[in-house]
This record gives sequence, structure tokens and C-alpha cells, in this order.
Amino acid sequence: MQRIQLADGLSFSQFIQGYWRLLDWDLTPVQMVNFAKQHIELGITTVDHADIYGDYECEVAFGQALKLAPDLRSQIELVTKCDIKLVSQKHPSRQIGHYDTSAAHILASVDASLQNLQTDYIDVLLLHRPDPLMSADEVADTFAELKQAGKVRHFGVSNFTPMQFDLLQSRLTDKLVTNQVEFNPMNMQCSADGTFEHLQMHKVAPMIWSCLAGGRIFGEDSPQANRVRAVLTEIGEEVGATMDQVIYAWVLKMPCNPLPIIGSGNIKRIKMAVDASSIQLTNEQWFRVWVASNGHNVP
Amino acid sequence: MQRIQLADGLSFSQFIQGYWRLLDWDLTPVQMVNFAKQHIELGITTVDHADIYGDYECEVAFGQALKLAPDLRSQIELVTKCDIKLVSQKHPSRQIGHYDTSAAHILASVDASLQNLQTDYIDVLLLHRPDPLMSADEVADTFAELKQAGKVRHFGVSNFTPMQFDLLQSRLTDKLVTNQVEFNPMNMQCSADGTFEHLQMHKVAPMIWSCLAGGRIFGEDSPQANRVRAVLTEIGEEVGATMDQVIYAWVLKMPCNPLPIIGSGNIKRIKMAVDASSIQLTNEQWFRVWVASNGHNVP
Amino acid sequence: MQRIQLADGLSFSQFIQGYWRLLDWDLTPVQMVNFAKQHIELGITTVDHADIYGDYECEVAFGQALKLAPDLRSQIELVTKCDIKLVSQKHPSRQIGHYDTSAAHILASVDASLQNLQTDYIDVLLLHRPDPLMSADEVADTFAELKQAGKVRHFGVSNFTPMQFDLLQSRLTDKLVTNQVEFNPMNMQCSADGTFEHLQMHKVAPMIWSCLAGGRIFGEDSPQANRVRAVLTEIGEEVGATMDQVIYAWVLKMPCNPLPIIGSGNIKRIKMAVDASSIQLTNEQWFRVWVASNGHNVP
Repeated sequence: MQRIQLADGLSFSQFIQGYWRLLDWDLTPVQMVNFAKQHIELGITTVDHADIYGDYECEVAFGQALKLAPDLRSQIELVTKCDIKLVSQKHPSRQIGHYDTSAAHILASVDASLQNLQTDYIDVLLLHRPDPLMSADEVADTFAELKQAGKVRHFGVSNFTPMQFDLLQSRLTDKLVTNQVEFNPMNMQCSADGTFEHLQMHKVAPMIWSCLAGGRIFGEDSPQANRVRAVLTEIGEEVGATMDQVIYAWVLKMPCNPLPIIGSGNIKRIKMAVDASSIQLTNEQWFRVWVASNGHNVP
Repeated sequence: MQRIQLADGLSFSQFIQGYWRLLDWDLTPVQMVNFAKQHIELGITTVDHADIYGDYECEVAFGQALKLAPDLRSQIELVTKCDIKLVSQKHPSRQIGHYDTSAAHILASVDASLQNLQTDYIDVLLLHRPDPLMSADEVADTFAELKQAGKVRHFGVSNFTPMQFDLLQSRLTDKLVTNQVEFNPMNMQCSADGTFEHLQMHKVAPMIWSCLAGGRIFGEDSPQANRVRAVLTEIGEEVGATMDQVIYAWVLKMPCNPLPIIGSGNIKRIKMAVDASSIQLTNEQWFRVWVASNGHNVP
Repeated sequence: MQRIQLADGLSFSQFIQGYWRLLDWDLTPVQMVNFAKQHIELGITTVDHADIYGDYECEVAFGQALKLAPDLRSQIELVTKCDIKLVSQKHPSRQIGHYDTSAAHILASVDASLQNLQTDYIDVLLLHRPDPLMSADEVADTFAELKQAGKVRHFGVSNFTPMQFDLLQSRLTDKLVTNQVEFNPMNMQCSADGTFEHLQMHKVAPMIWSCLAGGRIFGEDSPQANRVRAVLTEIGEEVGATMDQVIYAWVLKMPCNPLPIIGSGNIKRIKMAVDASSIQLTNEQWFRVWVASNGHNVP
């Protein structure tokens, strides 16, 4: 599998294993270890977490596997996130979901993630959502403190606009290594609002969440989904691939070096996704999906 | 009161006294002097004017006070604006309100402001509205001429987008010292469209107009106003503050160093606003207003 | 006629002759030569083409004239474009119109344009539409190769947003010399979305297509067109000019050095357009068109 250099001393596998649905897979720690070994075997060494996934439980489950097989830790790049505060029975005083990029919250969140994941460092910490209350100076100081302490090696963001990215970057010595954003044939906003062009300009490879639009492409009965499904099916027949594979190939055709996150816990389906990297769509095939998504021709 | 450094040799009080409703207060020049002394006593030394306020009469009324008590001038930072051309009986040939950032108009407007205000310098001159016809080179030359002549010491803008700000800044030697923008719980556009992030990035403190949404928060019967009023009332009870105070505390929580303009002529109400600076809202309280304003939870 | 310096060794006439309707004019090659001589006589030396105009036939027709009168070539600045792939009987395998900014397509398109135009160099090559699949590095390498080979002397873009412009510029040694965009009293988007401010900031003069909104201003029965037509008629009476002329004068009043493209093949109408450069609209007249277009007063 192709590897993408994100910074000095940091490369990601082109495909990333997402763990936000980990609890749905109902794995014992031993099964979890086996699953991780299987995707590492496929070349997928980068894993995506967040403090809040599974109502704050996914990191814990993954940590049990890391404890059981400590040699896994050095074979993976571990990404996790902070700044969303969920309404949860674990935080009974909260009235409303909100964001928090204060030093106190980021530091506490990282400490909890390290404990949950049963590791002593995170490869990449992402701010999960842009926070209107973010003080870039405070975040920069906090990142420096975390790096100094050896708790986090690199930093990035998620769902940030170009301006939000530039603001935070303006206060940092190191480059933000990624911006994790949504992109799929049902939601092409990042290629319309400047996000992808900004990332290409700064040579920052985005991680892509929701490549399959949370399954909406396969099942939703809407004019857009119906059009998209029809053209993906056609293209699948043309190139001899499944609909999933066509979608991953379509995402990978973007020139900004996108890194698709796979959310499946089914190793066969993951292998099929990975095989999509060898499918070369033509520009015209890519634009047929664009037209189906927008419901009109290009200008 | 906290003071905010805007440039070498220029600081503003955190709260700013707005004078656009001055004529409504129906003050004699002596009363006007007393009013100014009272807000200066509270620490509010920065005053906000525009050539057009009160149909071109507010500067005149304030100037009469400055003439009566000449020692006031050195105790205040005097902000005024130019570039809007109002339809007015004073300009009978105008058919339509429009903007004018030509050298001729800016120079004439400043001369009129100096005469009206009975002073020989303006601390900060703002372009009142972005003008599609603005030649940044011509404005830059005009600003340089006004500074050279000692008529204006610093320059800023109002209601400018990041791109408009960058364009003008690209031609200036000195930094624009502020961008005066609208921000309140009914209109959070500046925190959604990149304006505040851009200002934070460039360390430019915005002056905030219409913090109370022109009274709409208190009286308007709309779904948004009703939601916002309800949550502000709740938070007021939680922190022991009036609705005005909660709003000012909410504005001040933004990380871009906002400088709220108070439009009231009632010194008791002004004092209450100023006291809001000691109220520390939690992030969650801030987001409860955000949610009430938008009518949906954060993503 | 005023000339605008776009780069070292490149200036354009303020008005540009557009050739996208060339086939409609039904000219023999001799008549075509005479037409070109006439607009050059008026000072219009810059001509605008694209590979796709007239279903890929306009360049051919113009090339026949250049062959007939080879001395024309050194008297003009020849602009053409690439990257749109039209559905056309000439390309029967295409299912859908799309864009292509690959090296292979740009190189092939330029070679075809040179052959069609019967010349050995293009003064300015534009990317016709922003392409979500554009690799800025690949385009930059391709531009360098074309310049090195002497096939294209300067490069620009068309219909690019500021971010798209910045992305491509970030990889180029030479400055992009123009961005050809739509602007007219029915479509003022470029003066509202930052495009013109960005171009003014970087001192890049835009070529303007569709100044007359494709005739919609003259004939369309819509509230906007009716308002715009009424105010243009009034202003025409005030300044003693035709509606076309008022529109060109209105476009030329923008401070970003716009270069209007004239699409007419009627030399009298072209001469009338050119004469518009001596009409000085007032700011208020300009804003009366703005208000008619938007249907509301300025804020």
C-alpha cells in the first residue's frame, strides 16, 4: 500500500482504519487484536479514533487490545481527537453538546485518551470541530506542552475551513499534518468551497471521513442518491468493480492526496476497499459522478 | 477597565461609547459634557462617531461639548467614519444612498468632521462600508496625506470582509487598527464567515456594533428572538445578571478581543454594561446561546 | 486606446475583440482579414479565442485569415483557452461535457490550437474553467514545458475563485497574467465574492466576458432586467450615450482594471463600445445600477 509522508518522521497508510463503530463489531480483546493484525497485514497501519466515539468507550476497547498485544503499538500510527463535549450519562451535568478548545480541556482529554488507549503517546491529535471560542495562542501553547511532554507527536484538525486552518497554523511552529473532512459523491462541499484547493496549496493531505456517506449512497431513496447510485453502478460495470470500490477510486482521484478512512469491521470488505487503489477512473467517469451528484452538467 | 492596545501609541477602553443616538438624548452642551465626564469616569475613554450619524448632526453636537470643555479632548480616543453618502435634505441633489472612497470625498469628509467636532485631529478614521469602487492605492495615498497633515492618527475599516481588509492592508504601511462589525446573539455571521478568525489571525481587535441587536432581542416576536431571550433569561438567573449584561459577557467571550460599543445615553445602564466584564460565562453557557440563535445543536 | 501592461513584454488593449461568435458572422477569409484590420485600426489588438468556440471551428476560421494576411500576427495579442471537453460530433466517444487539466490534454490542446490558428505561438493561454481534478504541480510543469518550447508566452485562468487562483499561482514562477470572468449589471458576483478585490490586491487585470449579459439586459422580461434596463436608459439620457456604452462605462469604472471583451462582429457597434471609454459615470450613477440589479438599497 502507498504511504503518504505527512511530516518529518510521520507517514500514513493511504487507507486508514476507522474505529468509530468498534463497539458494533462486538469483538473480544483477542478478536480485536486479530482484526488489527489483519488490517496491518493489508498495509493499513493508521488507525482513527476520537475520545467521544462509542460514547467515550471505543478508545477503551482498543486499549484493551493494545495491552494484550503490546507489539501492535509500534506498528501503527494512532490518531485521536478532542474538543467535542457530548451529552452523555458519563457527563451528567452537561445540558447541551458543545466544543471546548481550552488548555484545561485539551490536556485533560489527552490524558484520558492515553489512559484509555493504554499507551504513552498519540501519533496525531486532531481538534475535532472548529470552535468559535478557540484562542489560537492558547491552543498553540497547549500543543507545545503536549509535544514537550512526549504525549502527542503531531497535530492536525478536522472539519476546519481554510481560514480556521490558517488562523491556528499562524501560531504554530510545526505544520498541521492533516485536516480530516467529509467527502463523498453525496457531499462534495470540500471541492467546491476551497477546502481541497487550500490543502493542495499547502501540501497537506486530508483524511476523508464518510467516503460512503454513511451508507446513504446504497440505500437512500432521494433524487440525488438515485442518480449517484445509477452512475456508480454503470461505472462499476465499466471498470469491473463494486460500488464501494468505485467510490474509493473516485475519492482517490482528487489531486490533494486524500486518505480515505474505512469504517467497516469486515476484513473482506476492507480488502475490497484497498483494492480500489488500483482502479484508474477516467476524468470523464469522475465527472459523471459529479454531474449525478449536482443534478446538472458542468458550467 | 481593561485597555486594549491597538497600535503603537493607541489603546482603546474595552467598552466604547457610541454616539449615533446622541440627538435622541436631547442634551444641552453642558449636559453633554457631564455625560462624557461620567463615562470617562467609568473608564470608557473611546467614543464612536460617524459623519452621517443623526443626519450629519451628531458630530456637531459632540463638538459643542468639546468646545465647552476643551480638556476632554486629550482624555478620549475619538473615532469617526466616512464614505457613506446618505440621501438627506442637506444633500438635496442625491437620488440614492451610496458609497464614496475617492480621495476627494475622504479628504472633504475629514475636514468637515474636524470642523464639526471642533478638534484638530481624529484618533481613528474608519471607512464605514466596503465600496466596490474602492481603489486601494487611492485610499492608501489619501490616508498617508491625512496622517502627514496631522488630521488623522490611525486608520481602520468597518463591515469589511477578510478579502476587503487584506486588499486595503496590502497597500498600507501601518496596520489597520480595527474592523468595526456587527455581532450579537441574533447575528453571529462574523463568527461563521471567517471575519473573526481573520482578525484573530492578524491580531486586530474588532469594535462591535449592535451588541443588543438594536433592541430586537428584548422585544421582537420571532422564533429566533424568543429562543434567544429565553436562554439569556435562564443564564441571567444562573449568573445573577441582567439580560444586557449576559449579552455583553457573551460577546466578550470571543477570543478576538472584541470591543463592544454601548449605544445608551443612560449612565446607569452604561455602568451595568461595564460591570458585565467581570461575568465569566462557561463555554456551555456560550453555546446555549449559539444553539438558541441557530435553532439547532452544534454539528 | 489605453493599453494595460499585464507582464513584462505583454500589454493588452483595454477593449478586447471576442471571437466566440465568429461563425455567426459568416465571413469569407478576406472579409475576416478586413474585419481584423478594422478593429486593430480602432486600437483593439487583443483577440480572445478558445479551442471549443464554434464547436472547435472558430480557431480554424481565424487561422485562415492569419494565413491570408501573415502580417496580422505581429499586430495582435492572441489569447486562447483549453481544458473544457465538449460533447461534440468531433468527439463521438464523449458522454458528458467535462474538464481536463492533465498535461496530456493541455499539450494536445495547444498543439491543435497552434495548427488551427496557423501560428507558431500563443500570447496567452488560459485554463477555461477551474477543474476539481487539477494538480497544480502538473499544470505548472506543463506551462513550463510550453513556454520552454516557445508555444505559449504567458498564462492565465478563467472563472477561477481567489483560492483556485492562489493554488495555481503558488506553483508558478511567472505571475498569472489575467483571470477572465463574467461581470455585468445582471451578474455582479465577482464584486461580491472577493474575486475583484483579490485581483486588485495582486494587481492582475481581469478580462470581462458577457459585459452585456448575452443580450439579456436588452430583451429579458424579468424584474431584475426591467429595473436594470430602466436605470441604464435614464443614465444613457443623462450622459448622452447608448445603453451598450453605459454598460461598458459602468464596467470600466471598477478599480481592478477590467478589460471588456466585445462579442460583436459589427464594426460600428464595436466603435460605439470603444467610445464608451471616454464616458465618466459618477459614483452615484454606478450605484444606481447596483441598486437596480440587487433590487434593494446599499446597506
